[in-house]
Amino acid sequence: MQIDRLCRAIKETQCPVCAGLDTEYGYLPPEYESTAAELTDSEKAKCVLKFNCDIIDAVCDIVPSVKVQSAYYEQYGAAGVGCFFDTMEYASRKGLVVIADAKRNDIGPTAKAYAQAHLINSPADFLTVNAYFGIDGIQPFLEACEMTGKGVFVLVKTSNPSGGEFQDLNIGGRKLYEAVADKVRLWGEPYMGSCGYSSVGAVVGATYPAEARKLRERLPNTFFLVPGYGAQGADAEDIAVNFDDKGLGAVVNASRGLLLAYKKEKYAHLSAPDAARAFALDMKDDIMAALKRRGIE
Amino acid sequence: MQIDRLCRAIKETQCPVCAGLDTEYGYLPPEYESTAAELTDSEKAKCVLKFNCDIIDAVCDIVPSVKVQSAYYEQYGAAGVGCFFDTMEYASRKGLVVIADAKRNDIGPTAKAYAQAHLINSPADFLTVNAYFGIDGIQPFLEACEMTGKGVFVLVKTSNPSGGEFQDLNIGGRKLYEAVADKVRLWGEPYMGSCGYSSVGAVVGATYPAEARKLRERLPNTFFLVPGYGAQGADAEDIAVNFDDKGLGAVVNASRGLLLAYKKEKYAHLSAPDAARAFALDMKDDIMAALKRRGIE
Repeated sequence: MQIDRLCRAIKETQCPVCAGLDTEYGYLPPEYESTAAELTDSEKAKCVLKFNCDIIDAVCDIVPSVKVQSAYYEQYGAAGVGCFFDTMEYASRKGLVVIADAKRNDIGPTAKAYAQAHLINSPADFLTVNAYFGIDGIQPFLEACEMTGKGVFVLVKTSNPSGGEFQDLNIGGRKLYEAVADKVRLWGEPYMGSCGYSSVGAVVGATYPAEARKLRERLPNTFFLVPGYGAQGADAEDIAVNFDDKGLGAVVNASRGLLLAYKKEKYAHLSAPDAARAFALDMKDDIMAALKRRGIE
Repeated sequence: MQIDRLCRAIKETQCPVCAGLDTEYGYLPPEYESTAAELTDSEKAKCVLKFNCDIIDAVCDIVPSVKVQSAYYEQYGAAGVGCFFDTMEYASRKGLVVIADAKRNDIGPTAKAYAQAHLINSPADFLTVNAYFGIDGIQPFLEACEMTGKGVFVLVKTSNPSGGEFQDLNIGGRKLYEAVADKVRLWGEPYMGSCGYSSVGAVVGATYPAEARKLRERLPNTFFLVPGYGAQGADAEDIAVNFDDKGLGAVVNASRGLLLAYKKEKYAHLSAPDAARAFALDMKDDIMAALKRRGIE
């Protein structure tokens, strides 16, 4: 099961970091820019793929996983979507656990088509999904997980400022995101890995540490995908509450911070891939130090 | 504004029907199947596009709009996504109002990339979105609507059996879907068309008529995209409550019923496109008769 592979990779690398490839053409340093006469979608996608592969080469021995955000690729149409799958294929060949971040959701028959697209036919090992449709919009993804050993991360508590607008609404003593969390726990029970975590994980934003701490207790067997480190403002202390007392159970994503590290003064002497690597190592040290302060070795 | 164009097209055709192109390769009748030695994604996408164009040709003078469901195309990778955009481009050239059904959702910067992909760069006139992230995941779509005159349909009450699992949870006197509906109304106020409806519409499933009736009162200036007719079990009486007292304010989608009409006894003597046309005309008559029974001419 891919959840066991993810847990093992985190233990081996001692690095609960996910390199987020939310790559826009505008993020590329000059040496990756197109020299073609016309800057078509397909030209942009080609440049983004080259950049992504170099980033993957630079980090694949130190991080366990990458998260590839579909939106940035969909901007460049069919060529962009080709680049999305090619990026995941390359990361997978380099041994990384691959998370497709596409937050898909629909009624059952349509969710089945999404599961086919993003779990069964895809190099991705995990897919992010949105639970607004309830179980029959989730079931096709679970069936695909059953068939392939892959997993999903269900949106529970998102990292953005207005995440609470609906998610924090009070429902007879619980918040909406807690009601979603309770279902995620239930849905995940039949898909438990030998690592003690289920193939049905949760997205829990790093920017709400008080809520994350309570969710960690509420969902002892649910693996957390944690966005929000760096560019979105969460620090390592905020992050640490997402881990269990063995320092496992979560992987922390950084996208803009990592891809654009080459623009920061600290890393400005490095190439973009080397800057991404240095950023990932600093992020690892930052998180591991925070875990240590919480008494986790 | 595209919402005005949609309202006008419904008045002109007297047909509040949206032809749903949720086309799987497996739906195609034998005459559309590939004759290639190898059935690749790109081969499947080519066959689906030919079928879609013929369906569009057969219905474009009688229906105002098409809805193209992204999931079915994503199954065939980059080639499928190419077919998704090509289908919408063709429908747009034929004068139809085009709804991209992709239910996208994410944090602000990522929602901005989705808005670029599916409103600004796309032939689509409308996009379906999911509001779980709250306003800052919706704002980039609103800005794209402002810029292009296009619109969105926000998921409010979905048509699937488990739609109520979260949507019907009670939040201090309102249901969650009503809380979402109230925000949709608020978000839509600055984007009002001359037709009296906003560019920010709502998805309201036909399978919950009691809820739809109350939503129609709650959202007097919100246009409804109504899925669930036919294959999902809703009939014309269920549908009628979604309209205002002039018989406007909603468009009803049928996908499987229309695409697979050629398999029904009633239409079996017709080609698949002609069967889709006959189905759409029957659906129109069915809805118009139900509106008449409600006293709407």
